[in-house]
Amino acid sequence: MFKTVRGMRDLLPVDAERMRHVEEVSRDVSKLYGFEEIITPVLETYELLAAKTSEEIRERMYTFKDLGGRKVAMRPEFTASVARLVASKLRNEPKPMRLFSVGSLYRYDEPQYGRFREFWQANYELFGSSRPEADAEILILTTDLLTRLGLQNFRFKVGHTGILRGILDQEGLDEAKQDRIRQLLDKKLWDDALAAAREAGASQKCLTVLENLLEARSEDAFKVLENVKETVQDYESAVAAVDNLWKILELVKDSGTKLELMVEAGFARGLEYYTGIIFESYIPDLDIALGGGGRYDKLIQLFGGEPIPAVGVAQGIDRIVLALTKQNVSLKTAKERSVVVISVKEESMAKVLELSAMLRSSGLPVEVAVMGRSISRALTDADRRGVSYAVIVGPKELKEKKVVLKDMSKGEQWTVPINNLTEEILAGSN
Amino acid sequence: MFKTVRGMRDLLPVDAERMRHVEEVSRDVSKLYGFEEIITPVLETYELLAAKTSEEIRERMYTFKDLGGRKVAMRPEFTASVARLVASKLRNEPKPMRLFSVGSLYRYDEPQYGRFREFWQANYELFGSSRPEADAEILILTTDLLTRLGLQNFRFKVGHTGILRGILDQEGLDEAKQDRIRQLLDKKLWDDALAAAREAGASQKCLTVLENLLEARSEDAFKVLENVKETVQDYESAVAAVDNLWKILELVKDSGTKLELMVEAGFARGLEYYTGIIFESYIPDLDIALGGGGRYDKLIQLFGGEPIPAVGVAQGIDRIVLALTKQNVSLKTAKERSVVVISVKEESMAKVLELSAMLRSSGLPVEVAVMGRSISRALTDADRRGVSYAVIVGPKELKEKKVVLKDMSKGEQWTVPINNLTEEILAGSN
Repeated sequence: MFKTVRGMRDLLPVDAERMRHVEEVSRDVSKLYGFEEIITPVLETYELLAAKTSEEIRERMYTFKDLGGRKVAMRPEFTASVARLVASKLRNEPKPMRLFSVGSLYRYDEPQYGRFREFWQANYELFGSSRPEADAEILILTTDLLTRLGLQNFRFKVGHTGILRGILDQEGLDEAKQDRIRQLLDKKLWDDALAAAREAGASQKCLTVLENLLEARSEDAFKVLENVKETVQDYESAVAAVDNLWKILELVKDSGTKLELMVEAGFARGLEYYTGIIFESYIPDLDIALGGGGRYDKLIQLFGGEPIPAVGVAQGIDRIVLALTKQNVSLKTAKERSVVVISVKEESMAKVLELSAMLRSSGLPVEVAVMGRSISRALTDADRRGVSYAVIVGPKELKEKKVVLKDMSKGEQWTVPINNLTEEILAGSN
Repeated sequence: MFKTVRGMRDLLPVDAERMRHVEEVSRDVSKLYGFEEIITPVLETYELLAAKTSEEIRERMYTFKDLGGRKVAMRPEFTASVARLVASKLRNEPKPMRLFSVGSLYRYDEPQYGRFREFWQANYELFGSSRPEADAEILILTTDLLTRLGLQNFRFKVGHTGILRGILDQEGLDEAKQDRIRQLLDKKLWDDALAAAREAGASQKCLTVLENLLEARSEDAFKVLENVKETVQDYESAVAAVDNLWKILELVKDSGTKLELMVEAGFARGLEYYTGIIFESYIPDLDIALGGGGRYDKLIQLFGGEPIPAVGVAQGIDRIVLALTKQNVSLKTAKERSVVVISVKEESMAKVLELSAMLRSSGLPVEVAVMGRSISRALTDADRRGVSYAVIVGPKELKEKKVVLKDMSKGEQWTVPINNLTEEILAGSN
């Protein structure tokens, strides 16, 4: 018996419907905010995908040579592909440019709860603006998406890469040393991060500041920002970063968007290319981020383009589906009022197909009984499937241009002129 | 500068929108016919994908070893994955079972017009019924899909594998020899196919019958079927195949479905697993099939399941998009009535975000002006983008709870109370 490859999943109808629902709402939201969808290939050159991602992701890519000997890989994220486009085919498009991508991504991670080797993301990126309203838009959009999907009590963990960078730059630490510290912070190894800073030559004052920063977290976002600002007061560009974050969060709040913020000054996200705000979204009952993003003003340059400021977010579709399940958010099913059409005799089958087409043209989902079963067996089967109405097409009624309509939940049936059939079903109580 | 891998495409907004539109209509149609969507992985074991596909496809799969040393491949078609599910997790589901899959597939073909190394299909499969109404449903569904998409003058090339099989079985030719002849027919190498039949030991009568069959094609489906039936009269199961095809096409015709049929008795489709009707859909101006399918009653068995009759169709989404372009079918764009919201002063930005949220909650697509440009530059930009309305938010009007609304196409602007803003835009003429 054949099986799926380890770490890969089949989504059966109920799960597939949830996945597609989240994808669809993500696309609706992209349109409401003026994002245009682009579709990039699953397979890209290894060179592109490896260029700017973290080593951790790079090592877990599905990499191989194609039949032409090209070193290729399956995309582990969207940003490299989008950056490639922005630096090439889309380089002359007017700014701002808002781009939406959705699809499957691939990482050879150890399979675990909420982590799959094939997973889906909805990705929103805004290019061309370095202003706080652009950052605020991404936070508002994320809130809007989660709200429209019916999630409750979600919250955002928020930080700003400029705080740490401002301090370490002023301390004279080079990029490699800073990356090392960021990686340790990302893994929440606070002590190791402090030790690394010490080793890298950070001053005692700096170490004290860092220690205070790591403790600075609170659900009162503005209070913690006030504390952080005081803590980093000797580091000019760290202060500017705090001000920037403040401005963004203030815009979000004053716009009336309700979102729970958890500011963490020591928060670092895996990818090294962030230059400003960074954030992740969570629900209380799930310890994995539903989505995350931030500002990355230098990325396009690294892919060979002009410098273009950028801010974006990747929504984890699988994780949002998990969150919806956790919070028992139910989908309206498409099968609310469905019909099965059954022929009494084989010679009525063409008429069955014709009536089915007629009902579908009014938007009704219609199954044709194709098993050649007796009426009673076909009705039992329809009942088990939760079909709302059965239309029974027999030669006797057909002579009078009528059929038998059965309301499956009430168990009642009556004869209906074909001309009124659609109307009766649409007007019915099921 | 980074590029896409050879044979892979980026779909920029206009093309991506067409692709998603065809996908969406395909999904709508699946629901209308009672098909349930499943999502299977892009990566499957090589063993599964290689098991029952043609050698031609097998050799062109993207095959590699994953980091765990498993031999895997990117799916070149959906059917193997669906068959795997039907033979395993779905084996106890009641029949009929209608399954829908849509997504990207991968083949290392030589890139050419209408043929890409990454391409999309919408796949419909009906399991459990061997009756002609099931086959008819697949033809009707395909007609319905192409009609809903706005295509015109499409036609179906139709055949039945049982005709050739019936003849060659009775002549005593084994499966391998029959496959060889089918492959030559698939490539339209008539003479080679006849030569192969002769070499394989087919009688002179058989060769004459085959020759007559290859010439039997006509747009009057039932007339050609009559001729074919007479031609193959000495081959009992070939006659049964003709009767089966006749019955299917008659059901389609009598159901009122308008479709142009082109019956070709010598028609063979690439995949070797078909057992009954086979068909492909075309438009006149495009020499490549938009989709194709048929009946494959023995496939599930080959994947280790119980024998389950099956009939299905794969719609080539990329090719349908090409056909829509060929026939100049235009999409309604989502941007019909869009809004840009602009702040006169930086301090009004939170209000801009708030009003944008208000407008979006009524379904209006809204772009926030995030570039910090002057009003006149922001308006010029909005005009170039084809935005319908601009909302200009200034401190003076805000004091009176008003904003300025500009109708971009008329060039007129007036002051509107915020409470009436959504209404005025929705009622507007743009």
